[in-house]
Amino acid sequence: MKVDRRRLELTLEELSRIGETPRGGLTRLALSDDDRRARDRVVAWMRATGLAVRVDRMGNIFGERPGTEPLPPVMVGSHLDSVPTGGRYDGQLGVLCALEAIRALDDHGVRTRHPVTLVVFTNEEGARFQPAELASGVLAGRIPLEDAYNARDKDGIRLVDELERIGYLGPEPCAARPMRAYLELHIEQGPLLEEGGYSVGVVEGIVAISWSRVTIRGTQDHAGPTPMRTRHDALVAAADVVAGVRRLARDIVGGDMVATVGQLSVAPNIVNAIPGTVTLSVDLRDPSDSALDRALPMLERVVRQACEREGVRWELEHYWRVPYTPFDPLVVDTIERAARAAGARHRRLRSGAGHDAQYMATLGPAGMIFVPSRGGRSHCEEEFTPMDDIEYGATTLLLAAAELARAE
Amino acid sequence: MKVDRRRLELTLEELSRIGETPRGGLTRLALSDDDRRARDRVVAWMRATGLAVRVDRMGNIFGERPGTEPLPPVMVGSHLDSVPTGGRYDGQLGVLCALEAIRALDDHGVRTRHPVTLVVFTNEEGARFQPAELASGVLAGRIPLEDAYNARDKDGIRLVDELERIGYLGPEPCAARPMRAYLELHIEQGPLLEEGGYSVGVVEGIVAISWSRVTIRGTQDHAGPTPMRTRHDALVAAADVVAGVRRLARDIVGGDMVATVGQLSVAPNIVNAIPGTVTLSVDLRDPSDSALDRALPMLERVVRQACEREGVRWELEHYWRVPYTPFDPLVVDTIERAARAAGARHRRLRSGAGHDAQYMATLGPAGMIFVPSRGGRSHCEEEFTPMDDIEYGATTLLLAAAELARAE
Repeated sequence: MKVDRRRLELTLEELSRIGETPRGGLTRLALSDDDRRARDRVVAWMRATGLAVRVDRMGNIFGERPGTEPLPPVMVGSHLDSVPTGGRYDGQLGVLCALEAIRALDDHGVRTRHPVTLVVFTNEEGARFQPAELASGVLAGRIPLEDAYNARDKDGIRLVDELERIGYLGPEPCAARPMRAYLELHIEQGPLLEEGGYSVGVVEGIVAISWSRVTIRGTQDHAGPTPMRTRHDALVAAADVVAGVRRLARDIVGGDMVATVGQLSVAPNIVNAIPGTVTLSVDLRDPSDSALDRALPMLERVVRQACEREGVRWELEHYWRVPYTPFDPLVVDTIERAARAAGARHRRLRSGAGHDAQYMATLGPAGMIFVPSRGGRSHCEEEFTPMDDIEYGATTLLLAAAELARAE
Repeated sequence: MKVDRRRLELTLEELSRIGETPRGGLTRLALSDDDRRARDRVVAWMRATGLAVRVDRMGNIFGERPGTEPLPPVMVGSHLDSVPTGGRYDGQLGVLCALEAIRALDDHGVRTRHPVTLVVFTNEEGARFQPAELASGVLAGRIPLEDAYNARDKDGIRLVDELERIGYLGPEPCAARPMRAYLELHIEQGPLLEEGGYSVGVVEGIVAISWSRVTIRGTQDHAGPTPMRTRHDALVAAADVVAGVRRLARDIVGGDMVATVGQLSVAPNIVNAIPGTVTLSVDLRDPSDSALDRALPMLERVVRQACEREGVRWELEHYWRVPYTPFDPLVVDTIERAARAAGARHRRLRSGAGHDAQYMATLGPAGMIFVPSRGGRSHCEEEFTPMDDIEYGATTLLLAAAELARAE
C-alpha cells in the first residue's frame, strides 16, 4: 500500500499558491486572509474526501474518517500557518501528507477499526501570536483559552478577533478527547537526514525549549550633541547581549545547545536618536533539561553585565518553557516498521524544533516522521524537500496510521 | 526692547497640544495630520500678525513682514516636525520665538529697512523622510526636487503625495532668493550651556555629519534544528558592528567624534528564526572634516571584519555627508552683541546637530542662537528648557534680527 505521489504533488502545488512569495516561498501568517483561504481549500478537500469536519474554539480543524468500531481516533496532521517569507513545506506538507494518507486508505478500500482524523492546528509558528504551538497547548490544557484569545500580534490585534473575522471561531470545545495516537509528518529543518542520505527520520523526541524576553531601557537622546561620555545606549547593551548569547551556546557543556536572538526591536529607531529602548528575544534549546537549567542563570549574567557596563536598566522574563518530550516508544517502533515497509532509508533522530506533537504527546501516544530539508534550511523561502523523500514519508505515515488504526 | 514672555509661553503651550504624547512630549512626524494642524495654527497666527504668507513646492512656509525699502529679507525660523516621542522644544521653539520677535517689533512700533520673514521648513528631522533638512536642502539647490518628492516613509508613502494630501504642496518655486541673513533659534540638545549656567549659546558652526547604511545578509533559518556550526546569523554580525561603531568614536584622535547606530531592523524578526537580513544606520559627527574622512575607512573595516567572521554578505553605503559649516563671522558677532544687550549669560559653541541653518549658510550670511537643554537631552519626551532661558534667547533673536534688518 502506498500513496498517490502525483495527487500529493498536485495538492502541494495548488496549496502553495495561497500566500506564495515572489521567490517561491510562503508568507501565510496565522489567521491572516491567506490562512483563511488555505483553510477553506483544505476543508473543501476534506469534505470531498467524505470526512466529517468540525472546528473548535481555537480554530483547530478536525476531519474524521469513521472507523468500524466506536474507538478513539488515530489523529494525523500538522499546521497551515507559516513564518513571514517562510517556505512551502513547513507545516502544510504534514497536513497534505495526512490528507493523502486518508485518500490512499480510500483508494485501497481499507477499513480501520479506529477512526482516522485529520487535524489542522492554529498558530503553530508563533510568528504572529506567541507562544508557538498555541492551539495544541490549549487543547492539551497547558495554556488557558483566555490567554490564547488575548494574545496580540504586533499591531495589537487579538487572536480571538482574528479567529472570528476569518470565520474559524468554531463551536466545539477546545479540549482533549481520547485518542489512539497522534502522528505528524514534518520537514526536519536540520541537516542530518540530507547529510546521511536518508529519506525518513523516525523522531524519538523533541528538545527542551526556553523562550525569554529582554527589555533594555537606556536614555533616548540626540545622536549629535550628546557626548559619548554621557550616553546610555540601549542598543549598545543589546548588541553585547547578542554576542553573549552566541558565546553561551558554546560554553554550555555538551555542545548540543542552540541559542538564538531572533527578534530585536529598537525605539525610536531613527538614524539620529540614541536608542532609548530595545526588546529582544532569546531562544535556547537543548536535548537535556538540566543543560537548559544551567543556561538560564548564565543568560541572566550576560544581560546584567551588558547592561551594567552601559548603565542601562533591564528586565528579563522567561515566559515559555517546554521540557524534553520523548515520544511513545511503541509509536516510534511502529513508525520505524512503517518506514522499513515503505522501503525508505531511515534513521532515528531528535527534533530541534517544537511541534504540536509536543503537546499532543501529553494527551496520548504520539510520534513524528521527518523528511529531509535541503541544506538543513527552513523558515526561509529556500525550503526544499525532494518529491522522492516526500513520497517515502507519506507512505510511512500511511502505513503507521493504518497499523495504529488497526486496518482490517 | 524685549519679547513678551507671557505671550510666547502661551503660544508654546497651545502649539504643544498638537501631537502631544501622554508623557508631555511630542510626536509630530513631518506631513502627518498633526503636522498639518500645527502648520495651520502657525499660518493663522502669521496672518493675524499681518504677515504675507506663501508656501513653496516643498511645503516650506514664508510669512513676510514688509521692510521700508525693497531689500532682501532677514529670515528667521526653524521647523515644526518632531521625531517619534520627541520633545516640545526641538524645532517649534525656534518658529515661535521668531513669531514672537516679529510680534515684538510690532509692539514696539519698530520699522525695519529690510523685510523680516518668518520661515517654517518641511521635514527637518529626517525621522519620516530621509535625509534630514530635506526642504532647506532643496531650497539651497543641494537636493534635487525630484529626489525629495520621491522620498518614501517606512510605509512606502511618497513625500509629494503627503504634501498634497495635507494641503501644503504650494505654488511657489522652492529656490533661493536673495536674503540679508538667516537666523535660527534652537535648543542646544547637548549639555554645555546647562553645565556652565549659560542662557544663550552663540553658535559658531555645525559639525560635519556622515550617514551610512549597512545591509547584512546572512542565512535565514530555523532557530531550533540548525546547529551552531552551520549558522550565518545577520544579527550576530550586526551586533559586532554596533560594538565596533562604539569603539570607533573612542579610537579617532581628537575625542570630539560621536558615533551612533540609531536605526536597526531585523528580518524576519521572529523568536524562532535565525535573522536573515539586518539593516542598520551609522551616524558619525565630528567638528573636523578630516576626522570624518579618517573614520569612514575604519567603519568599512569594522563592517568587513564583523561580516567575514560570521560568513555573511554586506553592503555599506555612505549616502549623506555635510561638511563642517562655519557661520558668518559678522552674523555671529551680531548675535553675541544681541545676547549681551539682552543681559543673557552667553558663550560661543558649536552645534553637534544638523539644522536647516546648515543649508541656509550656503545661500547667505547665517547664524544660530542656542538655549539650554536640561540634562543635555533632546529627541525624547523629557526635553526641557526653562522659560527664563527661552526669554533671553528670544530677545537675543529679536535684537539680532532688528540690527540685521536695520531697524530705524
